[in-house]
Amino acid sequence: MLYRMAAVISMIKAGIIGSTGYAGAELVRLLYQHEEAEVVWYGSRSYVDKKYYSVYPNMFEIIDAACLDDNMAELAERVDVIFTATPQGLCASLVNEEILSKVKIVDLSADFRLKDVKTYEKWYKLEHKSPEFIPEAVYGLCEINREQVKKARLVANPGCYTTCSILTAYPLVKEGLIDPNTLIIDAKSGTSGAGRGAKVDNLFCEVNENMKAYGVTTHRHTPEIEEQLGYACQKQIMINFTPHLVPMQRGILATEYASLMPGVTAADIRSAYEKYYKKEKFVRVLPEGMVPQTRFVEGSNYVDVNFVVDERTGRVVMMGAMDNLVKGAAGQAVQNMNLLFGLPEDMGLKQVPMFP
Amino acid sequence: MLYRMAAVISMIKAGIIGSTGYAGAELVRLLYQHEEAEVVWYGSRSYVDKKYYSVYPNMFEIIDAACLDDNMAELAERVDVIFTATPQGLCASLVNEEILSKVKIVDLSADFRLKDVKTYEKWYKLEHKSPEFIPEAVYGLCEINREQVKKARLVANPGCYTTCSILTAYPLVKEGLIDPNTLIIDAKSGTSGAGRGAKVDNLFCEVNENMKAYGVTTHRHTPEIEEQLGYACQKQIMINFTPHLVPMQRGILATEYASLMPGVTAADIRSAYEKYYKKEKFVRVLPEGMVPQTRFVEGSNYVDVNFVVDERTGRVVMMGAMDNLVKGAAGQAVQNMNLLFGLPEDMGLKQVPMFP
Amino acid sequence: MLYRMAAVISMIKAGIIGSTGYAGAELVRLLYQHEEAEVVWYGSRSYVDKKYYSVYPNMFEIIDAACLDDNMAELAERVDVIFTATPQGLCASLVNEEILSKVKIVDLSADFRLKDVKTYEKWYKLEHKSPEFIPEAVYGLCEINREQVKKARLVANPGCYTTCSILTAYPLVKEGLIDPNTLIIDAKSGTSGAGRGAKVDNLFCEVNENMKAYGVTTHRHTPEIEEQLGYACQKQIMINFTPHLVPMQRGILATEYASLMPGVTAADIRSAYEKYYKKEKFVRVLPEGMVPQTRFVEGSNYVDVNFVVDERTGRVVMMGAMDNLVKGAAGQAVQNMNLLFGLPEDMGLKQVPMFP
Amino acid sequence: MLYRMAAVISMIKAGIIGSTGYAGAELVRLLYQHEEAEVVWYGSRSYVDKKYYSVYPNMFEIIDAACLDDNMAELAERVDVIFTATPQGLCASLVNEEILSKVKIVDLSADFRLKDVKTYEKWYKLEHKSPEFIPEAVYGLCEINREQVKKARLVANPGCYTTCSILTAYPLVKEGLIDPNTLIIDAKSGTSGAGRGAKVDNLFCEVNENMKAYGVTTHRHTPEIEEQLGYACQKQIMINFTPHLVPMQRGILATEYASLMPGVTAADIRSAYEKYYKKEKFVRVLPEGMVPQTRFVEGSNYVDVNFVVDERTGRVVMMGAMDNLVKGAAGQAVQNMNLLFGLPEDMGLKQVPMFP
Repeated sequence: MLYRMAAVISMIKAGIIGSTGYAGAELVRLLYQHEEAEVVWYGSRSYVDKKYYSVYPNMFEIIDAACLDDNMAELAERVDVIFTATPQGLCASLVNEEILSKVKIVDLSADFRLKDVKTYEKWYKLEHKSPEFIPEAVYGLCEINREQVKKARLVANPGCYTTCSILTAYPLVKEGLIDPNTLIIDAKSGTSGAGRGAKVDNLFCEVNENMKAYGVTTHRHTPEIEEQLGYACQKQIMINFTPHLVPMQRGILATEYASLMPGVTAADIRSAYEKYYKKEKFVRVLPEGMVPQTRFVEGSNYVDVNFVVDERTGRVVMMGAMDNLVKGAAGQAVQNMNLLFGLPEDMGLKQVPMFP
Repeated sequence: MLYRMAAVISMIKAGIIGSTGYAGAELVRLLYQHEEAEVVWYGSRSYVDKKYYSVYPNMFEIIDAACLDDNMAELAERVDVIFTATPQGLCASLVNEEILSKVKIVDLSADFRLKDVKTYEKWYKLEHKSPEFIPEAVYGLCEINREQVKKARLVANPGCYTTCSILTAYPLVKEGLIDPNTLIIDAKSGTSGAGRGAKVDNLFCEVNENMKAYGVTTHRHTPEIEEQLGYACQKQIMINFTPHLVPMQRGILATEYASLMPGVTAADIRSAYEKYYKKEKFVRVLPEGMVPQTRFVEGSNYVDVNFVVDERTGRVVMMGAMDNLVKGAAGQAVQNMNLLFGLPEDMGLKQVPMFP
Repeated sequence: MLYRMAAVISMIKAGIIGSTGYAGAELVRLLYQHEEAEVVWYGSRSYVDKKYYSVYPNMFEIIDAACLDDNMAELAERVDVIFTATPQGLCASLVNEEILSKVKIVDLSADFRLKDVKTYEKWYKLEHKSPEFIPEAVYGLCEINREQVKKARLVANPGCYTTCSILTAYPLVKEGLIDPNTLIIDAKSGTSGAGRGAKVDNLFCEVNENMKAYGVTTHRHTPEIEEQLGYACQKQIMINFTPHLVPMQRGILATEYASLMPGVTAADIRSAYEKYYKKEKFVRVLPEGMVPQTRFVEGSNYVDVNFVVDERTGRVVMMGAMDNLVKGAAGQAVQNMNLLFGLPEDMGLKQVPMFP
Repeated sequence: MLYRMAAVISMIKAGIIGSTGYAGAELVRLLYQHEEAEVVWYGSRSYVDKKYYSVYPNMFEIIDAACLDDNMAELAERVDVIFTATPQGLCASLVNEEILSKVKIVDLSADFRLKDVKTYEKWYKLEHKSPEFIPEAVYGLCEINREQVKKARLVANPGCYTTCSILTAYPLVKEGLIDPNTLIIDAKSGTSGAGRGAKVDNLFCEVNENMKAYGVTTHRHTPEIEEQLGYACQKQIMINFTPHLVPMQRGILATEYASLMPGVTAADIRSAYEKYYKKEKFVRVLPEGMVPQTRFVEGSNYVDVNFVVDERTGRVVMMGAMDNLVKGAAGQAVQNMNLLFGLPEDMGLKQVPMFP
């Protein structure tokens, strides 16, 4: 790997385990357009030996490779970075010291996001197969943990809801402008977040013309948000988080409510957002009066945030919008890869949001 | 009118001012299927003399009438009940004692919903043209004000968001199970709520694949919810209410959060819902674990409600789903008409939700 | 059954095999609102013993029954009419003389639609298990075969595409105004036509923002259209039929092209449509210049038709719009039931199209 | 301009008249990502002096410029190429010899697409204000007129439907494999093709859950298709073309039917497609059995084509799918710009289709 640090001549070789899910496919799309990386292993247990374009015909005449089985040991020999875009549990069951000594891993599943293995096992109802790597794993929310990511071997790519929820509230929690235990996050997501599995609940006729909440009080992104925002305010917090399914493909909108600390003004809040995000390319603090809309970040790595203070009730309403497959999954994974390999953080991520 | 009370032989004659908006058109659809009422005046300032079916081709070979101008004085001579499905301000500017002495009015606009004219003028930024009728107007949320509606001349048909928001929280507020000042309502609505006006914001390409909040902290349904829930708990309250636009045609989902009063259990909450809604045909308290979905009330007058207690945070998450054009507008207007004329409350409102 | 003819006192008892598919569920919706029929057997092999409302929550507090297994023999004892809303092959494998001697059957599958068993076996790639009943089965396109349906024991309810395709072209074929062998039918259907099975192809994210053709030159409704239109012009014909999947729930639009016979004028064509449809409640011949739109028939049993003559090319463009689940499946099945039992043909089918 | 030919040091300066329509906005998106061009004039009569990002918030922190009025004379001084993404008639009314002597023009309107001014005036019902430039204008369907475009001053960018319709049938017409006068094109388009104007017909609630034909036998792209395919087969032809509106944002699918010339086989047809498109980057001839889907070209400049031969009827069914805003408008305009300035034809057009 060292030679790469010295002179980036050859491309970064990437392998994807789970390349035929929606998040995996988005990784394929982004990495194809990345100047310094290329996918050399399209992993997909379900489509071994099938041409990738037969699963995703948008890639016809673009990608000629066929899908390969999951083989992390062989992958470690052949690539510089492995992305695991797989269900919970798989990455933890495959990773070991030998692999980590040879290759960087960006895990898009939840296996290494929570530092407390008991919390993981309680919310995910799964035994963790390699808790010994939890301590070294870095939570890859780039805007917050940038420096740690650069030095990591194993990056836990944040959840989609969590990325949006945390970035929307972070400056206010960090600066002590709100009471974090009053935080209520009402989040809405497009259907690609549910994956490409064949389930009646995700059929067009079931999702279209419908709004519903799900996982009410029990959604697994709750402890992830609590842990990360807890670090920001340096105490344990408990919040309410409610996800909803929306009849759209991509996009997450988080509407967040919290009680303001005494004396906090709208100007204080704007200053806090500017303090943390003014230099961040991928977080756009919108001008006053402009609400975040998923439409205007679709296909890009941006998170748009804004807020309104309600003087009547003493609360602030924060809003954040993001593409769940980009900043909420594949885009952030590429951003983490860029950090891991010393590349400009936005390389391969300059897509302008596509509208309409 | 008296002869009708004695013996319902002839049909109730109804006039609609604003029959070519979405709410007006839904009134036309519902009243066409009503056993004891018929529309005899299809008011539409924009389409005077045009066949109603040329504006709504679904009504071809069903309704042959042409649209008529707004003329409340003449209407009062010719009909038994007037529905005003018009923008705010119109009903207040047309109504007078002579008209009210001849005809019942169900106003689908906001003109007579708020008892405090100053609150109306502040939130709606309109001068109220007939505040003298505000005291006698009855807020037509049938499940709560049934008896008063029966005796009314002027019914203020509740707003769409308010109907859903209030019914979802009412039993808990009324029974003192939650702290009403902690109430946060995050509501999501289909696009028909925005009306049939030609606006860029409501174009297909703008609404589709998008979620956004709007009217954050300033939406006009806020004081209406506060007033009605304030009556329930017998004090002034202040809440947060945030509406969102969803890429679907019909449906409102309200997700509501509030802190539980000490010692309140899930069983207490279920009892409260049962107490108020067990006998209500149009409010369905769903079994534990089944979330309200707009899909399953579409086209009907039902409101589906349910809740989850979060013991970790001491809050309850309440949910309500409703068709904004039926129970949120035209259906409730018909329900009010039924009450006004002594008919069975569900007459003409027996539509089964249509899915998919 | 005779007593019913004499005096319709009790309700018609209906059993549905396959009541939890989309077509079956639509039958449930329509029959619930039927004045003279009631469902007493909610058949569903997949959900035996489960409450019907747990599969279709729109029916909560409306239908309390649980689902039952498929048992045609027992059904024949308990009901007056059986609807089979099942995949091809099932009805043919269950029906026998004893059953048909006790009960009417309306088969929503394709088993008895084609008179030539070889054509059936070729296009459906299935062996027909009871070809002996094909001759007596009546093709239940009510507007065309009304009188035969009245006397039938076994009705083959037409396919969705075929109902729309045939009714759109029928008067022109029957009257010899077009050359039937030049007929090209380009049909577009909402996704409910694909059923409620869990398939990747029908996921929201796959169907939304997409148009595609499928079954090009091989779709099974082709021979059905050819057979029926062949009866109309009294010769064998061959046409092109191409179905497309559209990101909507309900609705079929058929756009049909054919060469006009020499000298045929637009007036001739309009006369032909009027001749056959003027008295038909469920076929609406739209005024000149108004195109059929699926929107304006949704939820109803109407088929809207219209046409444009292209003098430049000597062709006519015919258009028909219909709700695939109503007139294309469950609505027509009820219409057939009404004919079978001597009831008014539109009983239970007076739903006004719901828009938006 | 010459210096640019010698050495491309500075960027191509582009001005857009009509930059706030959907096609104009797509040009902005594509040119922003173009290595050798930059937009220096965001023309928009409706939004003069407003920040571009206030009209298209996806461009916040990406484009800081404000919108400018239409001033072709000034534009000609300041830019190298003008794109007119405006309603018909505007470009023809502004262009003159002096302007054309200074600047290249790519006109996205229909003003210079038809060589016969009478045909233009008949189908568009507009007087043509500068017919003297029609002869020199080059029809910018790059795959067919590549060499002429390179030498042009004025490029008529083809219509969206026409691009898809022509490319789908071109090889078969050119090679004489079908009878061009039997050609029937049934085309389906997403709603962005209707533009961003505020019209009731394009509201979400009107478009969603709907399919309809429009402009039946009278759509203006008809003579454009006839003229271009007429050049291919060297005779005047007449076809049927029917556009339909589909509830999706982007995408055109053209399903085309024609009678095969005697003896033509599927292999002949595939050879013809390969002959013309094998080397074309932006036209993908799909493998047998894979149908073109709008989904898989969205956001890209690709046109996917395929066909099925129906031996029963002696017809071929051709299919083509394309993004109406990219290859159907802005993408092709950039492709034309690349040809005009001697750049690689795919520069700035390497976007991979985005799915879902």
